[in-house]
Amino acid sequence: MLSVLAQEAAYNADYIAGQEALFSGVAYGLAAIGPGIGIGYLVGQAVQAMARQPEMAGQVRTTMFLGIAFAEALALIGFVVFILLKFA
Amino acid sequence: MLSVLAQEAAYNADYIAGQEALFSGVAYGLAAIGPGIGIGYLVGQAVQAMARQPEMAGQVRTTMFLGIAFAEALALIGFVVFILLKFA
Amino acid sequence: MLSVLAQEAAYNADYIAGQEALFSGVAYGLAAIGPGIGIGYLVGQAVQAMARQPEMAGQVRTTMFLGIAFAEALALIGFVVFILLKFA
Repeated sequence: MLSVLAQEAAYNADYIAGQEALFSGVAYGLAAIGPGIGIGYLVGQAVQAMARQPEMAGQVRTTMFLGIAFAEALALIGFVVFILLKFA
Repeated sequence: MLSVLAQEAAYNADYIAGQEALFSGVAYGLAAIGPGIGIGYLVGQAVQAMARQPEMAGQVRTTMFLGIAFAEALALIGFVVFILLKFA
Repeated sequence: MLSVLAQEAAYNADYIAGQEALFSGVAYGLAAIGPGIGIGYLVGQAVQAMARQPEMAGQVRTTMFLGIAFAEALALIGFVVFILLKFA
């Protein structure tokens, strides 16, 4: 009887770990949708701005990288969430 | 019989914790969609504004950072929600 | 009795691995939505910028590849997530 209970407990722990891992990928997948669209829009507008004012190209590129960094950070935090759910 | 009941109770508590953790990642993933798109749009428009009025570039960048801070805060609150669901 | 428990344990491990693999594809699928739209928008705007200022075509193309790299990286991280869920 005791070994059955121990087995049961081990099963439960495994089951919970499996359930956590189940949606860990979905977490990253959802977190990548927004930054993907955002970075695309951002660089698209930056390229348009360069074509409109070629002498501002340097400052436009600097600002573009700032925006890419802030948007990409959201997806990288999503990857941290995935790692925490899958392996922690 | 008592040990079986205790086992049952432990199982239920674990099961609920597992269910909470299950959707914790989905919570952050959903919370990151909006800010990702929003920051991309915001910086894209800021870059366009710089190209249109180069002498306003400094003020445009300051306002852009204000918007980034407020949009990014939403995703960071989503990360706090994830931490609370997973570990608290 | 013991062999039944061993059988049970093997079944559970397989079941959990199956559950993980179940949603691993959904993870990549979701992660590909955003970058797909983003890269499409980005290259569309780059082509428009080239048509507006043909003498800026070289710089526009360089910036376009920068943006493609950052947006594509999100989908490639999604592929890493899929590999980790399916095989790790």
